[in-house]
Amino acid sequence: MDFPVEEWSNRAEAVKKQFYPSTGKSRLAGNAMAELDPEFAELIQVVARGRAYADPTIDLKTRALCTVACLVGLGEQRYVENWIANSMNVGATKDEIVELMVQLFVYVGTPKAVIGFEAAKAVFTERGVQ
Amino acid sequence: MDFPVEEWSNRAEAVKKQFYPSTGKSRLAGNAMAELDPEFAELIQVVARGRAYADPTIDLKTRALCTVACLVGLGEQRYVENWIANSMNVGATKDEIVELMVQLFVYVGTPKAVIGFEAAKAVFTERGVQ
Amino acid sequence: MDFPVEEWSNRAEAVKKQFYPSTGKSRLAGNAMAELDPEFAELIQVVARGRAYADPTIDLKTRALCTVACLVGLGEQRYVENWIANSMNVGATKDEIVELMVQLFVYVGTPKAVIGFEAAKAVFTERGVQ
Amino acid sequence: MDFPVEEWSNRAEAVKKQFYPSTGKSRLAGNAMAELDPEFAELIQVVARGRAYADPTIDLKTRALCTVACLVGLGEQRYVENWIANSMNVGATKDEIVELMVQLFVYVGTPKAVIGFEAAKAVFTERGVQ
Amino acid sequence: MDFPVEEWSNRAEAVKKQFYPSTGKSRLAGNAMAELDPEFAELIQVVARGRAYADPTIDLKTRALCTVACLVGLGEQRYVENWIANSMNVGATKDEIVELMVQLFVYVGTPKAVIGFEAAKAVFTERGVQ
Amino acid sequence: MDFPVEEWSNRAEAVKKQFYPSTGKSRLAGNAMAELDPEFAELIQVVARGRAYADPTIDLKTRALCTVACLVGLGEQRYVENWIANSMNVGATKDEIVELMVQLFVYVGTPKAVIGFEAAKAVFTERGVQ
Repeated sequence: MDFPVEEWSNRAEAVKKQFYPSTGKSRLAGNAMAELDPEFAELIQVVARGRAYADPTIDLKTRALCTVACLVGLGEQRYVENWIANSMNVGATKDEIVELMVQLFVYVGTPKAVIGFEAAKAVFTERGVQ
Repeated sequence: MDFPVEEWSNRAEAVKKQFYPSTGKSRLAGNAMAELDPEFAELIQVVARGRAYADPTIDLKTRALCTVACLVGLGEQRYVENWIANSMNVGATKDEIVELMVQLFVYVGTPKAVIGFEAAKAVFTERGVQ
Repeated sequence: MDFPVEEWSNRAEAVKKQFYPSTGKSRLAGNAMAELDPEFAELIQVVARGRAYADPTIDLKTRALCTVACLVGLGEQRYVENWIANSMNVGATKDEIVELMVQLFVYVGTPKAVIGFEAAKAVFTERGVQ
Repeated sequence: MDFPVEEWSNRAEAVKKQFYPSTGKSRLAGNAMAELDPEFAELIQVVARGRAYADPTIDLKTRALCTVACLVGLGEQRYVENWIANSMNVGATKDEIVELMVQLFVYVGTPKAVIGFEAAKAVFTERGVQ
Repeated sequence: MDFPVEEWSNRAEAVKKQFYPSTGKSRLAGNAMAELDPEFAELIQVVARGRAYADPTIDLKTRALCTVACLVGLGEQRYVENWIANSMNVGATKDEIVELMVQLFVYVGTPKAVIGFEAAKAVFTERGVQ
Repeated sequence: MDFPVEEWSNRAEAVKKQFYPSTGKSRLAGNAMAELDPEFAELIQVVARGRAYADPTIDLKTRALCTVACLVGLGEQRYVENWIANSMNVGATKDEIVELMVQLFVYVGTPKAVIGFEAAKAVFTERGVQ
């Protein structure tokens, strides 16, 4: 089977510009995976951004909110923060993020929900969002 | 502090009708929680549906997809199935569900992603969705 | 360092009689661990029952309820069931089990709480507890 | 269905006084959930304390130890710390906490058990408990 | 960046033959992911087998045992079973599998260790390994 | 049943020397478990090292890599770090560790894989491994 890797690569670049309009890169770019195996880290990004996020079946803001929700389920605070920031870069508002955390509480319980709220607060503070 | 429980109760009924247009109730209704502590189970539903899902800040379809994503993160197949069905009842398509699972793979890895795909397949089969 | 393994062994036998007054053994006895490495499986039981459960610092019923709570946190339905049965064998009532699940909901969220309630219902049904 | 929210509210206040006799509030009070959605955070506390902890079916100390056990299962160190402190405020001793961690080791394995022991040590140190 | 996808593809085929000498395919082949998005499922296999497993830095048997260990950590019984079978196809013995489960007990605790032992027993039974 | 505790004790000492040739002890030695219940902490080490790691059925380097893999599955960064260091003390190389993380990505997804890569980087930096 042949994979349209070059097309994914191009689409990934476009997605990156939408998610990181000012810095041009994720706040998690340059992490240890990128340092220890740059080719593999790049592959993950090309597939994630170029195959998944760039696909127009679901709009980018909905996708970003779903990733936030998944990461709250996983309890990964640093990634939740990253994706709340990404979702706000493609149009999500503070109120939507807070509403999402309230909804997720029902499924994940207090400790993981609070991880979500704290990640949200960190991003809001960073951006001066009241 | 006073909580608008009656308002939530009414809004919860409306949400229930949107999620379960034909049967009027969740496929997980009547579970052991509802049997062993009906008041508490009802409270959870009133808060979940009336306080969270009914709030117009995020539309119902986006909310349902986020719940699917969160449950894939938790690895809870039966609940993923339930919420894929709910999301399709408020407008999500087969293609959107499949796309979502591809995207979530990146965060959850193979075993949990396959739980998501299997839940999706079960719902598609049940509904005769090609 | 010297470990009082023989003492633990004796105390473990006594604990076993309290937890399994009618059958004399756990419903999970004879599982694959016991079959594939009987010595190691026996060691775990001697330490668990003889070092931990037999220690009088915490009474057996409180210990059993704590184990139920821990296993609900882990989301392990079969083990939750086993320990609800054990806790009832040392004095826990249906009402206490139901109350515990309501309390744990706050920390674990719906899917794991429902695992707890379903395990409880299975044990209540098995025993004909109304 | 009607929920006795006012009664829960009153009972919650009484529970709060028992858990936090000196400060009057949880060490996790004022977290990001309380800041971003005070009404929802208050609701959770009213239900948790007023519906669950205040119910006399299980005494407060046993409940607190069960919550510690559940949180060790979840691996949530900050919450384990909080609930070890709460349990000691309603009568649990250092020896009981240490015994509980030994018991839970069997179910959760080393990394989560060590989270429990480290949370315990932090609370003991804070209180000057030898 | 250019990825050697064709090389990975070829190497993946070779790995597949080593892991599945008799059937030519994984017992999990044809799962819902492969059915709902065959291209993506194929990509995962090409990368997993062709980029990771085929790389000679670590031999195939050690890799397979590490995957078993990781999956026991995740608590995914069906995948543990699959990878115990794979590891035995590239040289792992019953004794090694049992030894590994004993070792992992220390980190994962009883419920997940028993998942590992039960998966092992299922594979041993299937193969008539005494 | 009689357990060869003294033999395990002696074998545990030998394993300890292999894993910690320079310091003679684990970097996690003296943690809160060892402080609050030294006998129990010692028992765990005697069983883990003397019963499991010392058994020659699987060589020490393969065992250490399997423990790393299990801990990446559990998402326990501090323990992953400890066991990457241990595995390198018994012969694992930087390349093997990086390869292992690439392989595990497939099962655990991005956040846990990055925990693994970051633990690896921390150990490589500490040792001046290029």
